[in-house]
Amino acid sequence: MSEHIGHLIHGEIHCDSEQTQAVFNPATGAQCAVVGMASTATVDQAISSANKAYPAWRNTPPAARAQVMYRFKTLLEENSDKICELITREHGKVLSDAKGELARGIENVEFACGIPELLKGEHSRNVGRNVDAWSEFQPLGAVAGITPFNFPAMVPLWMWPSAVMCGNTFILKPSERDPASVLYIAQLAFEAGLPAGVLNVVNGGPDVVNQLIDAPEIQAVSFVGSTPIAEAIYQRSSNNGKRCQALGGAKNHAVVMPDADLENVTSALMGAAFGSCGQRCMAISVAVAVGDKVADALIEKLKPQIESLKIGPGTDNSNEMGPIITAAQKDKVAAYVAQAIEQGAEAVVDGSTIVVPNYESGYFFGGTLFDKVTPEMTIYQEEVFGPVLVVVRVKTLEEAVELINDHEYGNGTCIFTRDGEASRYFSDKVMVGMVGINVPLPVPVSYHSFGGWKRSLFGDLHAYGPDSIRFYTRRKAITQRWPSGGVKDGTLFSFPSF
Amino acid sequence: MSEHIGHLIHGEIHCDSEQTQAVFNPATGAQCAVVGMASTATVDQAISSANKAYPAWRNTPPAARAQVMYRFKTLLEENSDKICELITREHGKVLSDAKGELARGIENVEFACGIPELLKGEHSRNVGRNVDAWSEFQPLGAVAGITPFNFPAMVPLWMWPSAVMCGNTFILKPSERDPASVLYIAQLAFEAGLPAGVLNVVNGGPDVVNQLIDAPEIQAVSFVGSTPIAEAIYQRSSNNGKRCQALGGAKNHAVVMPDADLENVTSALMGAAFGSCGQRCMAISVAVAVGDKVADALIEKLKPQIESLKIGPGTDNSNEMGPIITAAQKDKVAAYVAQAIEQGAEAVVDGSTIVVPNYESGYFFGGTLFDKVTPEMTIYQEEVFGPVLVVVRVKTLEEAVELINDHEYGNGTCIFTRDGEASRYFSDKVMVGMVGINVPLPVPVSYHSFGGWKRSLFGDLHAYGPDSIRFYTRRKAITQRWPSGGVKDGTLFSFPSF
Amino acid sequence: MSEHIGHLIHGEIHCDSEQTQAVFNPATGAQCAVVGMASTATVDQAISSANKAYPAWRNTPPAARAQVMYRFKTLLEENSDKICELITREHGKVLSDAKGELARGIENVEFACGIPELLKGEHSRNVGRNVDAWSEFQPLGAVAGITPFNFPAMVPLWMWPSAVMCGNTFILKPSERDPASVLYIAQLAFEAGLPAGVLNVVNGGPDVVNQLIDAPEIQAVSFVGSTPIAEAIYQRSSNNGKRCQALGGAKNHAVVMPDADLENVTSALMGAAFGSCGQRCMAISVAVAVGDKVADALIEKLKPQIESLKIGPGTDNSNEMGPIITAAQKDKVAAYVAQAIEQGAEAVVDGSTIVVPNYESGYFFGGTLFDKVTPEMTIYQEEVFGPVLVVVRVKTLEEAVELINDHEYGNGTCIFTRDGEASRYFSDKVMVGMVGINVPLPVPVSYHSFGGWKRSLFGDLHAYGPDSIRFYTRRKAITQRWPSGGVKDGTLFSFPSF
Amino acid sequence: MSEHIGHLIHGEIHCDSEQTQAVFNPATGAQCAVVGMASTATVDQAISSANKAYPAWRNTPPAARAQVMYRFKTLLEENSDKICELITREHGKVLSDAKGELARGIENVEFACGIPELLKGEHSRNVGRNVDAWSEFQPLGAVAGITPFNFPAMVPLWMWPSAVMCGNTFILKPSERDPASVLYIAQLAFEAGLPAGVLNVVNGGPDVVNQLIDAPEIQAVSFVGSTPIAEAIYQRSSNNGKRCQALGGAKNHAVVMPDADLENVTSALMGAAFGSCGQRCMAISVAVAVGDKVADALIEKLKPQIESLKIGPGTDNSNEMGPIITAAQKDKVAAYVAQAIEQGAEAVVDGSTIVVPNYESGYFFGGTLFDKVTPEMTIYQEEVFGPVLVVVRVKTLEEAVELINDHEYGNGTCIFTRDGEASRYFSDKVMVGMVGINVPLPVPVSYHSFGGWKRSLFGDLHAYGPDSIRFYTRRKAITQRWPSGGVKDGTLFSFPSF
Repeated sequence: MSEHIGHLIHGEIHCDSEQTQAVFNPATGAQCAVVGMASTATVDQAISSANKAYPAWRNTPPAARAQVMYRFKTLLEENSDKICELITREHGKVLSDAKGELARGIENVEFACGIPELLKGEHSRNVGRNVDAWSEFQPLGAVAGITPFNFPAMVPLWMWPSAVMCGNTFILKPSERDPASVLYIAQLAFEAGLPAGVLNVVNGGPDVVNQLIDAPEIQAVSFVGSTPIAEAIYQRSSNNGKRCQALGGAKNHAVVMPDADLENVTSALMGAAFGSCGQRCMAISVAVAVGDKVADALIEKLKPQIESLKIGPGTDNSNEMGPIITAAQKDKVAAYVAQAIEQGAEAVVDGSTIVVPNYESGYFFGGTLFDKVTPEMTIYQEEVFGPVLVVVRVKTLEEAVELINDHEYGNGTCIFTRDGEASRYFSDKVMVGMVGINVPLPVPVSYHSFGGWKRSLFGDLHAYGPDSIRFYTRRKAITQRWPSGGVKDGTLFSFPSF
Repeated sequence: MSEHIGHLIHGEIHCDSEQTQAVFNPATGAQCAVVGMASTATVDQAISSANKAYPAWRNTPPAARAQVMYRFKTLLEENSDKICELITREHGKVLSDAKGELARGIENVEFACGIPELLKGEHSRNVGRNVDAWSEFQPLGAVAGITPFNFPAMVPLWMWPSAVMCGNTFILKPSERDPASVLYIAQLAFEAGLPAGVLNVVNGGPDVVNQLIDAPEIQAVSFVGSTPIAEAIYQRSSNNGKRCQALGGAKNHAVVMPDADLENVTSALMGAAFGSCGQRCMAISVAVAVGDKVADALIEKLKPQIESLKIGPGTDNSNEMGPIITAAQKDKVAAYVAQAIEQGAEAVVDGSTIVVPNYESGYFFGGTLFDKVTPEMTIYQEEVFGPVLVVVRVKTLEEAVELINDHEYGNGTCIFTRDGEASRYFSDKVMVGMVGINVPLPVPVSYHSFGGWKRSLFGDLHAYGPDSIRFYTRRKAITQRWPSGGVKDGTLFSFPSF
Repeated sequence: MSEHIGHLIHGEIHCDSEQTQAVFNPATGAQCAVVGMASTATVDQAISSANKAYPAWRNTPPAARAQVMYRFKTLLEENSDKICELITREHGKVLSDAKGELARGIENVEFACGIPELLKGEHSRNVGRNVDAWSEFQPLGAVAGITPFNFPAMVPLWMWPSAVMCGNTFILKPSERDPASVLYIAQLAFEAGLPAGVLNVVNGGPDVVNQLIDAPEIQAVSFVGSTPIAEAIYQRSSNNGKRCQALGGAKNHAVVMPDADLENVTSALMGAAFGSCGQRCMAISVAVAVGDKVADALIEKLKPQIESLKIGPGTDNSNEMGPIITAAQKDKVAAYVAQAIEQGAEAVVDGSTIVVPNYESGYFFGGTLFDKVTPEMTIYQEEVFGPVLVVVRVKTLEEAVELINDHEYGNGTCIFTRDGEASRYFSDKVMVGMVGINVPLPVPVSYHSFGGWKRSLFGDLHAYGPDSIRFYTRRKAITQRWPSGGVKDGTLFSFPSF
Repeated sequence: MSEHIGHLIHGEIHCDSEQTQAVFNPATGAQCAVVGMASTATVDQAISSANKAYPAWRNTPPAARAQVMYRFKTLLEENSDKICELITREHGKVLSDAKGELARGIENVEFACGIPELLKGEHSRNVGRNVDAWSEFQPLGAVAGITPFNFPAMVPLWMWPSAVMCGNTFILKPSERDPASVLYIAQLAFEAGLPAGVLNVVNGGPDVVNQLIDAPEIQAVSFVGSTPIAEAIYQRSSNNGKRCQALGGAKNHAVVMPDADLENVTSALMGAAFGSCGQRCMAISVAVAVGDKVADALIEKLKPQIESLKIGPGTDNSNEMGPIITAAQKDKVAAYVAQAIEQGAEAVVDGSTIVVPNYESGYFFGGTLFDKVTPEMTIYQEEVFGPVLVVVRVKTLEEAVELINDHEYGNGTCIFTRDGEASRYFSDKVMVGMVGINVPLPVPVSYHSFGGWKRSLFGDLHAYGPDSIRFYTRRKAITQRWPSGGVKDGTLFSFPSF
């Protein structure tokens, strides 16, 4: 019988038996668990738990709240093998990649440990004679986060540690495709001393999401996923009068300049395009070669490496790439590849037909490379979320930047060059939120914030880092004047300027 | 023939003759001007102007942009008499009150002068070995602001100086009821050296607002007005995928503690309730007396002062209160007063029938005081925006805070006390964005930010001050690593943790 | 044979056998250990170790350095019993007090964990056209700290965690009177992963201090101790061209206002005056009663409580006060008490003759209270560092503030009142670095900084918290412009303004 | 009869007639004024004035203080011709260079306008349950600044606007060689509304300096000048227990990489080495050529340009270089040149014998270039402060950095390259406080701070910008807790951890 993955409500595992959904191991295609799909009543319980826990948690000094995060960090490190095993089982990524994901998640926990410093308000003495003013950043109440399948451990850790350290309580709705690791991690938080109700986890689909967004008790919504859903969640949350930050899809371009060391570039692109099977919102899916000479040489170097990619189950750390998350997503990738060929893209390597021995039912797809892709092609315009890299040829850096700026998405991008002027021109002009200079996956460290531009992010504050503290708090401005015991103040009908 | 108030597009006054609307002097009821209502084509021109001006302005160093603000401040000071005359002519407020408004607006200009400091990003050396990261705050492009009639000079200055100093270009849609001062001020900005197109002013009604919100070129929307419109604008902007901050209405409570000096409290309340005829989103409209003894004494002190309020045209500085903005708004206030009486509120002073000699056609309304108002009454629940103060009686500070927290709005509030514990309990627990301790109108100084909680503000970042810098910029995170000339880097398929 | 307490050099315990000094248990008067007094050669080794370790440590990313602090925090918590036992053995303070000390020290370690955030520099794009500028905070190299006996665990943790997290290496010269706990703690740091040489501990007296201050390799000196030595160290360091922060003595006043709750005040003063036998630079040694009525009542309440103080060995947690650090210091306190009586102070309680059964050789001294002390008396002017509280009577708050401001020292102070105006007047006007409002020992939390004014601190940056980051780093300002490939720049003989 | 330049005390020009010193026009060698040398009594008056003005100025809200700076900026701009004329008359620099100096000084005034933002303290709610803490930055009192001849307008503006905006009062002792412009500027400050006594100017020599440093009323000392004097002032101030920042001399290296565009480099070096006759602490006096090929080419390009430098009186803007400040300094430069030749340096261009027609008595010295200079030569080791550029040849960038790091001084430096890796290696490793990447004179903009490393600066906080705010303020940490009306708190003998 399948393992049953439940919810975590008020500090306890809660199994909502009425409705469940199968969870598959994408390397084998076999079901490995079922996950409960929360009923309306279950979601209500979670909301109620978060609300009940709020007042006491809000009043706990930040430095005391931080103690939970310190212990939580230690527990995450001690249990990393178990966590990564669960990630790989359900997501398919190679174990070493799961370790990388978890490490970045732990960095967010470290950032949250610094909450006493991060919550500091601004104090001004004598804004007027004997009038002082200060601004505090107070928590919001119960807030919600909805997270995607591709980083089941990391993305939730982008959200709730910051939110909870600010004094909020949190309801997390993770992806129902790989829910085991996130639940396990949440349990560690309670082991670390998080009071019941401060974090609740509910599994489910769109109904659960909508119920959370519509609940008047929920004060803010954070989302990471695809752009259409991000947009819908941003609209629905805003229509409910809530603050929302909704991170969407990407089409990340790597610009390769003529002065780049192609050996390095090739290595970098292999990892950035095919790591985690391309299922990262920061994956590089477009290489923009500046000049045909660069393009030709790059393709010559990439081709054999893509053809010899080691593909297989993520449990074997010698593999470089695991399977795609679901059979449906594999089919979707295959359809993109077929369409690209139809639309005239030149398939240098076509990974459609790959078979992994002993894992014939796994959702594997080989590394794929297209040359001579143009902006009109669907494979260029849309996010594939699979191991497909396309090469676009341009003549100049200016043209490369225009190309990127014309794309709907603006999540991440990078440039390969040694040249200071090129790098500065690029980082200044490119309309993209996260820029790498010779860094293929420029995911900001935890103490800077993560966010794309254009249709890659809806909202004004980015995820994690300093922006997350501002997102999860309300500014309160206090102006104070103590009346002098003896002197009377007169009436001021005019608008006061101190 | 009436003065014609046009638009300001690409640095030039633009008269859109097809449609106009009358502007009245509320002290006399006479029409004093007509204002052009922008056509679709005119709005398009403004947007196009803002877009054209953007690239060069964005690339102008912040310190150079600031030079315009320094000169603008000087011009505002030199022309303050003229500006205040226009404010009083169209809005009705007493000249000294207009001066106060302008002074607070100039403070926002001063804040914007500090843009080189305010735009500083965060730099981290060695986020990994020889990897650096920094975050910049880059401008958005063309942005829009929609402002209310009650502070025609100040509220626009909350918005565009910050926005424009961040490198954006701006389209301002001020209130069509008192458009003269804002246009005059905008002309001073160009006299100060603002390049054409960096600020555009278009007059008009809801159609103009919607056209701005729907224009794909407009990157962000700031609004100040009533809550229903704030909510609608927040929704429409968000549905268009834009960032928005929409400030709405208020019902501001002043808590009077038994230890308060009632002489001072009375003076403070007189100004805060009746200054500008109560037409301020920070006006005090509810006095919460803690204990009947305080309530009785307070009413005894307020009654004669309200009855002897000096009411008349704002051009006479000896008056304490001018007229209401429009005849319609005066009727609305009268209806609220009548309804309150019906619902059982005790009218201590009823200003409905006041007549100002020689100004019989002016929209004057006398100071009005209700006692024994309860939370169920409409006069308690809704924003009256007129010279009406109601007294609610409670038994304890805790009860006062609960009362305030149960109200739909949470803009401003204050407490009158000498007691440290009471003030701290209040400022900590009250669910209101701006709190005064013995300060009746706790409008934050320009270097703190302005914003209410609950349904008084939609969005996550407040107006002016530090929050406005974040609202009018996009965060860009850059991660940089220079490849070593000699050494090759290997491929990393796993998710990188520096 | 006595335990031998050595030095910690390059990660190893180092016993410098030539010269030693006895360490006593002040509760019994018995020798409990000997401590090595470092030779010149030993100090040289420490300096050389710190220098050797510097380059690699400096280049370790701050986030990686922080991992040591996280583990160190855990180890401190796990070993707190052992640490506190050593503190009590050598210092004499009651175990629960040692726990309090250690807890505050651990908070400094937590602060240091946040180094990636704290080290952020300031980045400005476009300070001129295409010119960027940023400021980094780089480490200094090898730095030294000299710490006092009264907080053997905490004060070293004020210094080296911040210093080391900034990328410096550190040489610590703790007090030779209670060196065991600090050495034990340093060993835990290495167990936590600190690389050899990043922290070195050398025991010794003035010669060791001077050698460190004079060594050209030492870039900065932090000191906490008495004012005469602080001043000498500040001068010597500065004469060597070094930066120095030297924290000295105190005479901390508590102002008791007529509206204060005397029950609370008495409790607060008992702990603040007699805790740790008054051997704290933040101890309250002067109570300033505002009005004779307050003074009389206060003394009436204090007298019986002081007389019934539970005094005995710190190993018994039911005691409230342990012994004084040395026999010499006990004699010095007794001399101060005798002189006070001679100079006319009224001894309400005289603790000179106290005897603790079974601990007749311990350095115990009873709680002592003087009334009618005046500013001319030595007992008022000098820091006693013993369990002696004096009452000074004044008529008004203004007089109290003048009294405090006229004193040579300005470390800490507090006021007891409920009144907002009094507290604001006090905190604004008092020339003291750390102010408590109803907080008798206003030691700032670790994320604010610690420092007195006037002759209580020499230097401009305070200890721990944000100031310590600035103290332990050098600012480097970088201005960058990439030449355009094509265009030539002309010569600018004039001074450039971007 | 000569113009008499007096002091400015308590807002009035004060002529101290007893002792005067001649002021010369270095372009003609003629005396152009006499400057009063302040007597002890005059300095006492200045100190007394500063002390008297302090309390009221301290209590003036920062936003009100800032109004003076806004007006002052305008007055500086309006009177810039007059100011620059005075600078050129007494210093000799070309008018356009004086304009550049003044422009940078005005930037410091702009920075000071932002004082309300810059003075913000840190506020933390709930550091313990119901305990709040905040830190304020309060002014020091009367402070002093001593400034050099080479930037008579700019360097004083580095100091007193920041100091005075923080709430301090200031005594300025400018260089007695060119005192006219600084006095004129100070008068403009009073015209702008500075209250009497907030700024005082006293002229004089070392006795005046010592009197200021020794006066117990002076709380802090800022100095800019040569290293031996900087060191002496740092020691004397510190020995008096004061905080001090003392900026000294420089020997600034420009590294020229093989990939640099030599046309650009030559232009940049010409300005940086010979502008203001090399009398700038940020002047480039050493060109470090990486590789003989670069060195040879560089010298080939520099030689003709140096030989054709347009030298003459600064009043003629077509000149590129004016005279040296004094005859004595000219002789000193000549002696350095002679010694360099003796020690084996290769004189490519020798400017010793230059004569400017019609200005034969002016202190002119021609541009001078040495090749094959080595670290052992005096001309390499010492600061010449004249129009002398030396070329040192190295083989690698690593060697260049070592060379720079081995020098006694560490004020400014720059690198010419297009290469990202080289620039990052350089800016990271070089032990110099201000680094230019293709920027020959990397004087930080006013909102970053100015300061060298090693023996170029004594103290820990840099000049102007954010560091100056910290230098001119004392941190005060306040911890506040309001006792609950009903509940009693117990005694805590242990050290409190909130």
